[in-house]
Amino acid sequence: MAGRLAILAGSGALPAEIAAAQPEALCVAFDGVAHQVPGAVVHQFEALGAVFDDLRAQGVGQVVLAGSMARPPLDPAKFDPVMLALAPRLLAAMQGGDDTLLRLVITIFEEQGFDVLGAHEVLPGLTAEEGLSVGAAPTAGDLDDADRAADILDALAPVDVGQGAVVAGGLCLGIETIQGTDALLEFVAKTPPALRRGARGVFVKAAKRGQDLRVDMPAIGPDTVARVAAADLAGIVVQAEHVLILERKSTLDAIEKAGLFLLSRVL
Amino acid sequence: MAGRLAILAGSGALPAEIAAAQPEALCVAFDGVAHQVPGAVVHQFEALGAVFDDLRAQGVGQVVLAGSMARPPLDPAKFDPVMLALAPRLLAAMQGGDDTLLRLVITIFEEQGFDVLGAHEVLPGLTAEEGLSVGAAPTAGDLDDADRAADILDALAPVDVGQGAVVAGGLCLGIETIQGTDALLEFVAKTPPALRRGARGVFVKAAKRGQDLRVDMPAIGPDTVARVAAADLAGIVVQAEHVLILERKSTLDAIEKAGLFLLSRVL
Repeated sequence: MAGRLAILAGSGALPAEIAAAQPEALCVAFDGVAHQVPGAVVHQFEALGAVFDDLRAQGVGQVVLAGSMARPPLDPAKFDPVMLALAPRLLAAMQGGDDTLLRLVITIFEEQGFDVLGAHEVLPGLTAEEGLSVGAAPTAGDLDDADRAADILDALAPVDVGQGAVVAGGLCLGIETIQGTDALLEFVAKTPPALRRGARGVFVKAAKRGQDLRVDMPAIGPDTVARVAAADLAGIVVQAEHVLILERKSTLDAIEKAGLFLLSRVL
Repeated sequence: MAGRLAILAGSGALPAEIAAAQPEALCVAFDGVAHQVPGAVVHQFEALGAVFDDLRAQGVGQVVLAGSMARPPLDPAKFDPVMLALAPRLLAAMQGGDDTLLRLVITIFEEQGFDVLGAHEVLPGLTAEEGLSVGAAPTAGDLDDADRAADILDALAPVDVGQGAVVAGGLCLGIETIQGTDALLEFVAKTPPALRRGARGVFVKAAKRGQDLRVDMPAIGPDTVARVAAADLAGIVVQAEHVLILERKSTLDAIEKAGLFLLSRVL
């Protein structure tokens, strides 16, 4: 029923991390999408029928989409019959956001009989469990700031905005929008010091409520840590079991070295 | 009952605009706060008792706080008896946000028997009435973006965040936080073009729900217009009768010249 696992590898470190932990998995990459997985079989999006055939021939029953897949230019002249049949739905979804397109991709794989898993299901150790993962314990003020940031993200859930927010001394210094975490933290770093009321502040990262974690799982990594430190925040709070800790060892080491904390909470 | 109006003038163009429209009003400025009101009587915050005495002596029954008052350094050695009595409450409020402090100032003036008005009550023409004030009519897409931005601000109202938001093609490009409108629009201007999906986008400015407009009334002015244009947005939507249009003629001219629109809506 379950069958062999295939990793559909996008860019970034995550696909290789999963591949290392799941040595039996078949790794598939796509022409036009950079990947870091040694030995991945490279397919073309235009020939999705061949991908399905290959997966079935290899006994694959489950797939995981991992890493970032920027939209590669598609050449309709190369579409195989499967892609031609899917084209109207794909074109419609491409008018929507990345989530819309990825949700359709998941639906298509499911229609073809594959189970689609989230990276956190394949590698549970990728997320942080509830508690303090690393660093000195947050202060009461830090915890208050984390509560307020979580309240802000909760308030935004119905309008499908916000995987992250920064609060310092009760004041909201930034809310993550489509530009992503790095842009948010850069913005926060430029806050005039007087507006921070002497508080350092906390970055809270969570999944959007109702978010399909197979589509777009929130993640932090060493870059996030560097930007949190540059913004002079006190630490990072992630939603327990809903946020990937990429390059775990480097990330936790960087948090400790920067004098920050990483706390996981049920949000 | 109403009595003469006094304008407590902070910095910026607004106090002088009110003074020009209300030539009978008494203008009061404060040592350490820049002001642009010709002939304002300058008092010291440390001698608030003298302010109250002077206002009463001049027959003042209503006051309006206008313009921005950054917190000037206070010298406790100069406190008069009224300030000494108020000091514990003032010090407590200074631990809070600017809103907390300004709300206390309003309460103090009310306790002294003055009515405290909002700038929009003294100069109703300062806000925009419902409808298109200037520019070409917004497209259906612009109106959808404005609706989505208004929904986002509504969602944030319970957590007391957000006087402004930018949405383009349904995607949220930014939410105003404590750094203010200019910082938000600068952030939006740096959005990678691919994230805007070909839509220009709309900046929506509104009062926070339950916001005391006498304390902190949202405002736009010529600077806002310049930044909206720099961010390549299509136009500005303000909450009808809740947002000040500062330097009205310059602002409307700038909007027209930049090819933007200004729409006022009941939000």
